[in-house]
Amino acid sequence: MDLKLKIHNSLSKKKELFTPINPGFVGLYVCGPTVYGEPHLGHARPYITFDVLYRYLDHMGLKVRYVRNITDVGHLEDELAGTGEDKIAKKARLEKLEPMEVVQTYTNSFHDKMDMLNNKRPSIEPRASGHIIEQIEMVKQIIANGLAYEVNGSVYFDVMKYHEDHNYGELSGRILEDLIAGAGEERRTLEGQKEKRNSVDFALWKNASPEHIMRWPSPWGIGFPGWHLECSVMSAKYLGETFDIHGGGMDLLFPHHECEIAQAKGATGKNPVNYWMHNNMITINGKKMGKSLGNFITLSEFFSGDHKSLEQAYSPMTIRFFILQAHYRSTVDFSNEALQAAEKGYNRMVNAKNTLNKLVHPGNEKAGNENAEAAILALCERCFDHLNDDINTAQVLAELFEVSSKANAYQNKQADIAELSLSTFDKMRKIFNLMFTDILGIRDESTADQGGEKLDGVMNLVIDIRKSAREKKDWDTSDKIRDSLNELEINIKDGKEGTTWN
Amino acid sequence: MDLKLKIHNSLSKKKELFTPINPGFVGLYVCGPTVYGEPHLGHARPYITFDVLYRYLDHMGLKVRYVRNITDVGHLEDELAGTGEDKIAKKARLEKLEPMEVVQTYTNSFHDKMDMLNNKRPSIEPRASGHIIEQIEMVKQIIANGLAYEVNGSVYFDVMKYHEDHNYGELSGRILEDLIAGAGEERRTLEGQKEKRNSVDFALWKNASPEHIMRWPSPWGIGFPGWHLECSVMSAKYLGETFDIHGGGMDLLFPHHECEIAQAKGATGKNPVNYWMHNNMITINGKKMGKSLGNFITLSEFFSGDHKSLEQAYSPMTIRFFILQAHYRSTVDFSNEALQAAEKGYNRMVNAKNTLNKLVHPGNEKAGNENAEAAILALCERCFDHLNDDINTAQVLAELFEVSSKANAYQNKQADIAELSLSTFDKMRKIFNLMFTDILGIRDESTADQGGEKLDGVMNLVIDIRKSAREKKDWDTSDKIRDSLNELEINIKDGKEGTTWN
Repeated sequence: MDLKLKIHNSLSKKKELFTPINPGFVGLYVCGPTVYGEPHLGHARPYITFDVLYRYLDHMGLKVRYVRNITDVGHLEDELAGTGEDKIAKKARLEKLEPMEVVQTYTNSFHDKMDMLNNKRPSIEPRASGHIIEQIEMVKQIIANGLAYEVNGSVYFDVMKYHEDHNYGELSGRILEDLIAGAGEERRTLEGQKEKRNSVDFALWKNASPEHIMRWPSPWGIGFPGWHLECSVMSAKYLGETFDIHGGGMDLLFPHHECEIAQAKGATGKNPVNYWMHNNMITINGKKMGKSLGNFITLSEFFSGDHKSLEQAYSPMTIRFFILQAHYRSTVDFSNEALQAAEKGYNRMVNAKNTLNKLVHPGNEKAGNENAEAAILALCERCFDHLNDDINTAQVLAELFEVSSKANAYQNKQADIAELSLSTFDKMRKIFNLMFTDILGIRDESTADQGGEKLDGVMNLVIDIRKSAREKKDWDTSDKIRDSLNELEINIKDGKEGTTWN
Repeated sequence: MDLKLKIHNSLSKKKELFTPINPGFVGLYVCGPTVYGEPHLGHARPYITFDVLYRYLDHMGLKVRYVRNITDVGHLEDELAGTGEDKIAKKARLEKLEPMEVVQTYTNSFHDKMDMLNNKRPSIEPRASGHIIEQIEMVKQIIANGLAYEVNGSVYFDVMKYHEDHNYGELSGRILEDLIAGAGEERRTLEGQKEKRNSVDFALWKNASPEHIMRWPSPWGIGFPGWHLECSVMSAKYLGETFDIHGGGMDLLFPHHECEIAQAKGATGKNPVNYWMHNNMITINGKKMGKSLGNFITLSEFFSGDHKSLEQAYSPMTIRFFILQAHYRSTVDFSNEALQAAEKGYNRMVNAKNTLNKLVHPGNEKAGNENAEAAILALCERCFDHLNDDINTAQVLAELFEVSSKANAYQNKQADIAELSLSTFDKMRKIFNLMFTDILGIRDESTADQGGEKLDGVMNLVIDIRKSAREKKDWDTSDKIRDSLNELEINIKDGKEGTTWN
């Protein structure tokens, strides 16, 4: 198969043609959530972004093994300094729960929200706490290679030593000297920093203080793994020491992904990942949204509208549409206006899709208008071109809006459907459905409640009949309507602005 | 709080008053599925059974930590002999997948089906593969206590040695001498048996042959844990070395649970579990249903009706009702007739519940009929008595059928609702809802489609109005109805047997 997909590789800072290591197969690793709180809008973006990538790779006939981890141990409060409490252990302590109860609660919630957002489930969802042995093995390997050292039961990665033969900063573009200079002040003050040979060193294994509840035996005593380690270990275990694509949010690029590269090269000498992809952030008034920043809105709150910053509820598909309307490498700023616009856009497109799928083409094999025909054929090609151009969902949606306008024009007889040949019309319809439903993964939320939609329509009819009956003083009919609706527990209310019901 | 719950303890073979170790808290462990295939009817029973126990304990104000594991490694094909391939590794080999892909697929499916059956999610759902270190630690402890031995990189539990100071067979009632005599023939022939000192010994750790894909380093070389070990380890980790209740299917009583006791006592010297509960089996024509037996029907097949033995689809709540209509320690034999009866019973009870909740009591504070009043008050008490009597859901449902008949009689004026005082009527209604919805966990499946139900009602009204209009030659109204319905894509059809619509 001739792949035309180009991916912006954060490592080379260029768009590169995607070539899998094993023809026909793709290994995809995406950093999953740290399950110590309700998933928020900041979680929606990476998982929707890489879901579309997964769907498109699958559409092209590639067999994708999609690994997305669950971080249930090791993510410290201040990861850069390597200090603070484990995030899950802290939550457990605050809520007087066993840490794994915290993990279970928020893993369940995360799964539920991902299902609602119509993200396909990954092939493997490994947990950090489920791979302690493998993490210990990798630490042993890095120590054996002379690139890590043990102090007081903790093991740190020796960044300076690594940098002698490698380039710490190759992914993030950070300059090691600057990092060291910048961290100088902190180094002297922060507990945990004192053990390090250098402030830029990071923990592979942390000694557990007696009160630390998540703990395992290791060659260095009782402790727990550093956060960066799990992704190196689990990606290597399930995808191999070098695999195709690693995705995640741009906030993970440094230090998390930089450290992943260092760990993998430090252990195996091999480059772990061929293509690094990073989605940009969702901001609120220009600031990153995140649990640790305290300015986040959970997905539950979006779906219910129950948050002081929200003017209304926004459905899962509104959120998905909102996110896909931007290219994944652009920032997206949250606002009610933007989400309301996305909701309108989503509804317009769903309606157009239903219109399009109901249109009846007269069957002419030759186009009535060669220009219109050529334009549609070009549009269909462009949809794939946009996906091949670093998964440009924003441009795909723009093309689908074009098709929507066409569908509406044919429906309203503002344009003649026979301007297209049957085969081109069929192709346009097929591509629309493929792009919208299968690749962008947008679900028609209205079909779930089609009974409700029809009920609205029939009720309008009934209210109309009742009005006429009352005007004609046909009390039999109007009483019958009132009584029947009462039995169905439907109340109608006559007000200034007409009759309403609930 | 004064607990009156009696539990049939498989260990004493008696009903015993339940007294938790820590007042107000309950530790509950239930053996979860081995995720190498679609969940089947045999899975529905234990998880519904212990879900009702969980709900009732919760109702009584106890704080329950409910741990249910996922077996994703170590369950051999022939567990009794300790031979054969790992079940998940075999499935992975057959399907050319990484074992953890098999695990992910069937764990997802299991979760989906449990949600559909309205089983509450456990507090913690630990995986065997996520607790290898803890399992190795327990094996080391048992070896240190002289109750296990290593041969060729595998470690076996020394049952004879254990039996010197303990009673192997205390749970199952098996006589060790009989077990040894019975296994004598096998012992000489089965590979893997040769390493054991005695045929009744069981594996704590298995040496992994080079082609075995699930493998971890251990003090005894590369291998994987024995199946029985995980439950001992994970229950102790999350519930303590001695905890309150351990549940599971009767098929797990021997050897699995017998071995759990031996492992725990062998490691800590302590009795691990105060109350052992075992649900009986679902049979097909008197035979146990099970994946390894090849005669199982998956839950998906029940829900779709797509299986040669099924005459129709059966909804999740029909399955739940069917299972709860028997006491959990009785066998239940599957047949279409039995499920159809359960479906009828379920529908009857849901309708009665809706009737009951709509009934309007006149408000008399004194009962019109003292006998009726006393009978209902006694019935309400009996619901709790039945639950306290080893969770007798069958008897609770029988009482709820009584209430259903009452509700229908009041509705049809065959009995006078004023025979009950207002407070007793309210109590009856409250208890019915508590038992049906909260404790038995039965969901009203029709409410999911309430839009549809109301639409039916309103359409009947519209068809009625149209008929009258036509009789009155009021063509304006009948035309308006026809046109409006056409717009809504609702077609009405006049036939011999009246007017229908779709």
